[in-house]
Amino acid sequence: MSIENFSIIESTLREGEQFVNAFFSIEEKIRIATLLDAFGVEYLELTSPLASPQSAKDCTTIAKMGLNARILTHTRCNLEDAKRAVDCGVDGVDVVIGTSSYLRDFSHGLSIPQILELAQEVVAYLLSQGVETRFSTEDSLRSNFEDILQIYKAVDQLGVHRVGVADTVGVGTPHQIYDIVATLRQNIQCDIEFHGHNDSGCAIANAYAALEAGATHIDTSILGIGERNGITPLGGFVARLYATDRSLVKKYNLPLIRNLDQTIAHLVQVEIPFNNYITGFASFTHKAGIHAKAVLNNPSTYEILSPEDFGLTRYVHVAHRLTGWNAIKSRADQLGLELDKAQLRQLAEQIKILADNGRITLEDVDDLLYEAAERQKIAI
Amino acid sequence: MSIENFSIIESTLREGEQFVNAFFSIEEKIRIATLLDAFGVEYLELTSPLASPQSAKDCTTIAKMGLNARILTHTRCNLEDAKRAVDCGVDGVDVVIGTSSYLRDFSHGLSIPQILELAQEVVAYLLSQGVETRFSTEDSLRSNFEDILQIYKAVDQLGVHRVGVADTVGVGTPHQIYDIVATLRQNIQCDIEFHGHNDSGCAIANAYAALEAGATHIDTSILGIGERNGITPLGGFVARLYATDRSLVKKYNLPLIRNLDQTIAHLVQVEIPFNNYITGFASFTHKAGIHAKAVLNNPSTYEILSPEDFGLTRYVHVAHRLTGWNAIKSRADQLGLELDKAQLRQLAEQIKILADNGRITLEDVDDLLYEAAERQKIAI
Repeated sequence: MSIENFSIIESTLREGEQFVNAFFSIEEKIRIATLLDAFGVEYLELTSPLASPQSAKDCTTIAKMGLNARILTHTRCNLEDAKRAVDCGVDGVDVVIGTSSYLRDFSHGLSIPQILELAQEVVAYLLSQGVETRFSTEDSLRSNFEDILQIYKAVDQLGVHRVGVADTVGVGTPHQIYDIVATLRQNIQCDIEFHGHNDSGCAIANAYAALEAGATHIDTSILGIGERNGITPLGGFVARLYATDRSLVKKYNLPLIRNLDQTIAHLVQVEIPFNNYITGFASFTHKAGIHAKAVLNNPSTYEILSPEDFGLTRYVHVAHRLTGWNAIKSRADQLGLELDKAQLRQLAEQIKILADNGRITLEDVDDLLYEAAERQKIAI
Repeated sequence: MSIENFSIIESTLREGEQFVNAFFSIEEKIRIATLLDAFGVEYLELTSPLASPQSAKDCTTIAKMGLNARILTHTRCNLEDAKRAVDCGVDGVDVVIGTSSYLRDFSHGLSIPQILELAQEVVAYLLSQGVETRFSTEDSLRSNFEDILQIYKAVDQLGVHRVGVADTVGVGTPHQIYDIVATLRQNIQCDIEFHGHNDSGCAIANAYAALEAGATHIDTSILGIGERNGITPLGGFVARLYATDRSLVKKYNLPLIRNLDQTIAHLVQVEIPFNNYITGFASFTHKAGIHAKAVLNNPSTYEILSPEDFGLTRYVHVAHRLTGWNAIKSRADQLGLELDKAQLRQLAEQIKILADNGRITLEDVDDLLYEAAERQKIAI
């Protein structure tokens, strides 16, 4: 898998708007779009102009911003929606229709032959308008794969730019996604996009498996916000790619991840999860003595992500009962205190006993270190 | 993959203690162990008795609780640690040693032949004491696989109960984990455990891939707490398994997930992430009109997890600009208001325009619905 050959379709301004807490004013949308463009995503996907009058205006406004990112909007599969989308002046239109029996029976009520006809009609129209055109089934994972293949072959022959695999309910596993995308890759010529929800915790791994199988476009949103618990998060996906190939630092402006995550967390009134990829407060903390010792010798021992590549720093936690003398030595060095190995070992034991009785602070540790250094001076 | 043939090794009381914010008193440890036992995990892993004096006492105390779960502790690979572990009265000992060049050079400094000798010595001792014995390499993903295979074959011949694959730095992908576990499965007789960190967002998918390849034991912690951003979270892993096979409801007491997540969040002073599996506040929310319509017809359309199986409920959000008339109808029904389709469509448009100008509340929507119902009465 080469990290050169794929694009991010950043959908915070579409899928992200479907997060229960999200409401973005046009000023906020412009701010998000500008930041994402500076980060370097290749596409921005916007809420359908059919959603509301302001949504249509926002589409037009953002399409006119002159960003490097290509501007897409996302609509249902019908001619009226497609025409309204084109009228907004976007670079491309992402068309979607449900193909699982769940969505055929309980949402739009169309049969597969009807969907096939509609897909061809809408794709042909969009291509005639000169816009980049994506056609995707919805709930692809619970659809009959033969149905998907039949429809995708038909729109591929029309010259569609891209088809999509959408794990709308978050049920797919990496093996399943790999098999679906690999089979499509063998049967069609156009690009392949993957959109994955995270209900069962595989959204990042599934996006990665899609790339391994030949997908070319991956949908993300900042912090993963979207329907329910959301989709592949931009930051987590970046962490996954970077772990495989550090040359990702040349493709995207990675230190902007922090700004992006903080901006969205503020706008949708949530905290950045404590365990969030890259930007969670715990991401670059090291605690157990055995970890601290090795990280102080060489951070790569227990870090696959180098915090400095994301404009961040690591934190070695020393004030707790799992600490060790190497960690204590490092703190003494930071304080400019010279203590010998025997003293440091004794101090580590003393700190463990102290910490066994409750939470202690770095100040408690420092006090013990200063006292020990003082005793040593007097002894000399 | 059958959900019958695996066990959870719940490591909140070992890996979880390595989370930067974690400090558990013995009372808290007992509370956590009791809850996890009621949930139904097969094993509890505890911090090494070598960590501190209280850690040793806690091991002994929890081993004597008489829980259904088997009690393990986790130690470095040397005879002194192994003896101390056995003295605590635990059912089993999980031994670990780093085998990547990173950990050999910057942590313990031993060569592979030295590790091989030590592994055999410690495993033979533990087996002679009648305790369930696991031997694992640390940082397995960055180790030479031939080294791992050599050592695991040697301890397998001694009769070790289980070997472990540890993705200590969170770099592995599902394909890699599958290949490693599948190759081990072909070469050794004993059980296989997987321990995966989540730095690059694959900890749940990797645990699942390990099971697909023949692993028998998976390490988890509540909310995934551990070093850095943690490991495979218990709740997320359960969501993954349930999405594959709903008969998981018979294996574990799923409604306790909420209690477990809330308890740990409180004890380590974090918020449950907004997007957490099952228990995040957004997990069972539905917003876009097209989603709301289908979910109101049949929740399975957009839900792979049924909230009622976890003792939770869904929430269909209607007060926003992505709403639709089906969602508005559902709210009118809840309020006992009879409005016809034309009125509901008009109300939906009105609400979209109102919501275009800023956040609105359910009360704003209800006011419009009551007013419309009042007008209808007057008209009649």
